[in-house]
Amino acid sequence: MTSKSLLTGNVNCNDDGKNYFFKVEALQKTGSFKFRGALNAIKSELETFQGTSMPVVTHSSGNHAQALALASKLASTAAVTVTATIVMPNNAPMVKKAAVEDFGAKIVMVENTNEAREEEADRIVATTGAVFVHPSENPRVIAGQGTVCLEFVEQVRELNAGVDLDLVIIPVGGGGLASGNLVCLRGLLGNKVKIVLAEPSELDDAKRSFQAGELLKHRPDNELNSVADGLKTTLGPNTWPIVRDLADDIITVSEEEILIATKLVWERLKMAIEPSAGVGVAVAKSAEFHQKYPKSSGIENVGIILCGGNVDILKISAMMKELGL
Amino acid sequence: MTSKSLLTGNVNCNDDGKNYFFKVEALQKTGSFKFRGALNAIKSELETFQGTSMPVVTHSSGNHAQALALASKLASTAAVTVTATIVMPNNAPMVKKAAVEDFGAKIVMVENTNEAREEEADRIVATTGAVFVHPSENPRVIAGQGTVCLEFVEQVRELNAGVDLDLVIIPVGGGGLASGNLVCLRGLLGNKVKIVLAEPSELDDAKRSFQAGELLKHRPDNELNSVADGLKTTLGPNTWPIVRDLADDIITVSEEEILIATKLVWERLKMAIEPSAGVGVAVAKSAEFHQKYPKSSGIENVGIILCGGNVDILKISAMMKELGL
Repeated sequence: MTSKSLLTGNVNCNDDGKNYFFKVEALQKTGSFKFRGALNAIKSELETFQGTSMPVVTHSSGNHAQALALASKLASTAAVTVTATIVMPNNAPMVKKAAVEDFGAKIVMVENTNEAREEEADRIVATTGAVFVHPSENPRVIAGQGTVCLEFVEQVRELNAGVDLDLVIIPVGGGGLASGNLVCLRGLLGNKVKIVLAEPSELDDAKRSFQAGELLKHRPDNELNSVADGLKTTLGPNTWPIVRDLADDIITVSEEEILIATKLVWERLKMAIEPSAGVGVAVAKSAEFHQKYPKSSGIENVGIILCGGNVDILKISAMMKELGL
Repeated sequence: MTSKSLLTGNVNCNDDGKNYFFKVEALQKTGSFKFRGALNAIKSELETFQGTSMPVVTHSSGNHAQALALASKLASTAAVTVTATIVMPNNAPMVKKAAVEDFGAKIVMVENTNEAREEEADRIVATTGAVFVHPSENPRVIAGQGTVCLEFVEQVRELNAGVDLDLVIIPVGGGGLASGNLVCLRGLLGNKVKIVLAEPSELDDAKRSFQAGELLKHRPDNELNSVADGLKTTLGPNTWPIVRDLADDIITVSEEEILIATKLVWERLKMAIEPSAGVGVAVAKSAEFHQKYPKSSGIENVGIILCGGNVDILKISAMMKELGL
């Protein structure tokens, strides 16, 4: 909400004697951390770009689409115009299309399959020479997402009399946020910091991959019925090795735990986060987390990345009410 | 959410070419601006207090109750303990009672009438020598609430390259927030700033008083059916003369306008404000406001105080859904 969209808080969300700090990426431009990676990718490309109009393209119906659209607009200069094309499934909500168009990006609609989206993006790259900016696999996107913890670590030090975070919880979907910040945190704090990835049980590809030691997709029978829709994508060849080598742990949580945690953040922190961001808080409140990381283990200062705030509150509220929350 | 609970934002909530700045008191301790006045009242009393235990008392079932309870706890020192007693109606929600007790205050339950509450508070003052801290009439409470704009003006200057607010919108109920900040703004910016108070049409005592030039209560047939429950109280002998002499205007808005504005803030600012805080945004979006204060009138930078965030989101969401929002 401030010009740098930075906000750090210190709120006890558990009665476990630990301090909890929240990095509220819901306040980032376009309502999620995705803007960081998109802007970094575009600005990096511009450094070596020769010409007056640089086309970029991606496929996304979610937060990355808006982020790339706005980043293209803001990165355009008097010398170079960045034009974004977003490939979207034809069942994407009107409100998401409108947001992308408001930022001046062009939308190309395709059938709602991964193949159709990828084919169309490939076709646009081949015919226009556009730069393809993958939502999570692009190395410059990964690096951009890593600026979350670059700020987080500094802000917590400042708030907390120089004391560092002992543990950071990061939601994981496609793994751009997770891998960027794993690299960032190991660089800044080495092995002094524990890093726990947070994932819905319904979308547990990262946890299953981590346990198996090899990159796995979603279970074939998985219907991807999670309220944490921002985390439906899976790890890929660039994000997986970073997760495998640098994460300490992956903890999964149920749909009910996610909704309870999301409601808690709405009520206590007064932040209207999306359920994907509630996943990290749900992990902090889980029995597994308390067992593994009690205060007696030296884990006192815990950071949680609240990754986004693009949420249909009336819809999620109705789900909470049905559950009797 | 930060240790000083300060947050300033710059978000366009209308397509009218103006800049909108929000002072988010939902992030203040106990979730509303009320903590400022309560703490100032107690700290001021402590300056001349002789003894080791200073009792304070108020009647409130809302934000002031929690604020006084926490302020008493935090103002206590090794030398003096501040003990708070809150007179509450016996139909106050459990969750509000629990919050007050969590901060260590004592609750005395009485029947749900103004007379019963005042009598009981008077009795406690007479028998214990407690300091009575009225939610809006106490001059030190009024002064404390005025620190909202002391910060707001400074923060906007810093964000906005030294340019000041041209107009500030303040919700009005009992008038503590309004009168404290009227005094503060006139002191800081004189008559260069327009000050518009925002009130629900259903709770229009301030507007009617302002038009009549004399202090009026609610219409006798008024059932006080407003979603903005924080604004149900009326102006009193201390707040009324300040409102009368220093406000430029009072604009009222409908229940639907309040709910639309509240939803807008949830979605765009990602702040889970209460409907009382939505009232100011509803005024900024109203036809009356646009007619009276177009950009061509020199009103470019508008500040809005989002007074609190203590809200039952599931309940308010259901009301929004019923209205088809």
